[in-house]
Amino acid sequence: MNFEVTILGCGAATPTGRYNPSAQIVNVHDKLFLVDCGEGTQMQIRKYKIRLQRIQHIFISHLHGDHYLGLMGLLSTLHLLGRNTELHVYGPSELKALIDLNLKVSQTWLVYPLHVHVLTPEVMEQIVEDKTMEVHSFPLKHRIATWGFVFKEKERPCKMRQEMVERLRLSPEEITRLKSGESITREDGQEIAPESTCEPAPPLRSYAYCSDTAVWEPLTEYIPGVDLLYHESTFLNREKTRAAETFHCTAEQAAEMAKKLNVGQLILGHFSARYDDMDKFTEEARPIFPNSVLAEEGKTYAVVAK
Amino acid sequence: MNFEVTILGCGAATPTGRYNPSAQIVNVHDKLFLVDCGEGTQMQIRKYKIRLQRIQHIFISHLHGDHYLGLMGLLSTLHLLGRNTELHVYGPSELKALIDLNLKVSQTWLVYPLHVHVLTPEVMEQIVEDKTMEVHSFPLKHRIATWGFVFKEKERPCKMRQEMVERLRLSPEEITRLKSGESITREDGQEIAPESTCEPAPPLRSYAYCSDTAVWEPLTEYIPGVDLLYHESTFLNREKTRAAETFHCTAEQAAEMAKKLNVGQLILGHFSARYDDMDKFTEEARPIFPNSVLAEEGKTYAVVAK
Repeated sequence: MNFEVTILGCGAATPTGRYNPSAQIVNVHDKLFLVDCGEGTQMQIRKYKIRLQRIQHIFISHLHGDHYLGLMGLLSTLHLLGRNTELHVYGPSELKALIDLNLKVSQTWLVYPLHVHVLTPEVMEQIVEDKTMEVHSFPLKHRIATWGFVFKEKERPCKMRQEMVERLRLSPEEITRLKSGESITREDGQEIAPESTCEPAPPLRSYAYCSDTAVWEPLTEYIPGVDLLYHESTFLNREKTRAAETFHCTAEQAAEMAKKLNVGQLILGHFSARYDDMDKFTEEARPIFPNSVLAEEGKTYAVVAK
Repeated sequence: MNFEVTILGCGAATPTGRYNPSAQIVNVHDKLFLVDCGEGTQMQIRKYKIRLQRIQHIFISHLHGDHYLGLMGLLSTLHLLGRNTELHVYGPSELKALIDLNLKVSQTWLVYPLHVHVLTPEVMEQIVEDKTMEVHSFPLKHRIATWGFVFKEKERPCKMRQEMVERLRLSPEEITRLKSGESITREDGQEIAPESTCEPAPPLRSYAYCSDTAVWEPLTEYIPGVDLLYHESTFLNREKTRAAETFHCTAEQAAEMAKKLNVGQLILGHFSARYDDMDKFTEEARPIFPNSVLAEEGKTYAVVAK
């Protein structure tokens, strides 16, 4: 089943010719989530041929311009294109007032149902769930209230091994019990364990987005062992002091966190406009966490079990 | 002296791969004015290597997203780049509340003085003036309050013809009087007219921006005879009914207005995303007003006296 991340923008606050501000599409089992929506995101979505109307959920990590200023344009375009399905937007408490004021001044009454959900500060919380996956928000450490998001696959119901059903002549009732994880003891004393009759389940995968944040130890509680981690690395080591002052991280600090969390792969992103030689980011990260890669706009990263 | 217009965006409400939303730079005597600021304008400014910090005035025609959603990103970038000179923004009355709310939620205190000026509805009004030029706003006819802008060169003080100063042995006092337009009668009865002693003044040029608007007869009072006119032509003739319903114009209607106003050249812009064959716009406009051209992003149009 699909589980992948497409980077639309991985630059920091001032857009450059090279990078757009923050935005990415997370595809979990063919459900599309937009995470952050900096200026120009709708153009990036179009450029990379992602179907705009398939997005059902938008998560805004915080209200610095490079993470939300593309939202109103996107909402407006969905409206002008005649969307008729629900859209759910999650963000800080002030987001609704921002959306409402923009709609009011342009005298726009959206043709689709828009639900704006307020993220809860300071705690981890499940915000989306369906049969096969769930999304949780969790606090980051930044100048203003900021959230990260983690996408996790859920345990799937046991899929019966057909040859065992036949060999053991399992009854529908026995199948139901085995699928729910129960062991069975037959009248003749035969024991059947559910593990022996289910297809081995593929490992559950997870992806976490952490931008923007200073070094933030509580991540070890929120997202230990995720398979793929996008972690901001606004700066290189020589701007370490500046990173601390502005509640951002260096590539080395992102790598240290990836190591501590024992993740599968680290994507470095949210690069300051001051740098030209981007290889420096991986050069500083890899000695600490070898499986570190640079975010590249337009590139899709598969979430692979460790 | 420089007087030219660089188009940054000439698409309509939904951005396409081809066109960006409305924005243009008007350079009058090396003063830069930004007219409208749709999403992505700051990236366009960077792409076309216009020096961001040289912009001192921004005019927002109205509060439909494709005309203002790039403003906050631009204001924020000027801030992050450490601007320290004044910036003047002119727009509808609700613009200040929008700017204030965005600055509040991001907890941003701009490092430069920002002055937000409210445009006056329903009348023509001078909004900027210096020694050599002036800008006026005037009402357009759209779904919400919308303004156009006209940039005009001012009459320049007489520049004395050096050979006349010498031949007539003009005294400093006589020069001052001639420069101010007075005629002189000398004691010997000799009459000197100012026209004979001043260099011939170049014709005064003017440029008007009209987007968005339905067909709007009062333009004949506001901007008769401008040398260059940017007039919206969102639609082609076959969408004439749609144009009227949405308070927009067709290319033909823009050309009819250009003819009625007796302008020098017409730039057609604000194209709906539905069209691919853009030559159709000039094909429909030129039979009515031959000197009609298509707006092209990145292209600079000189304002030339008729």
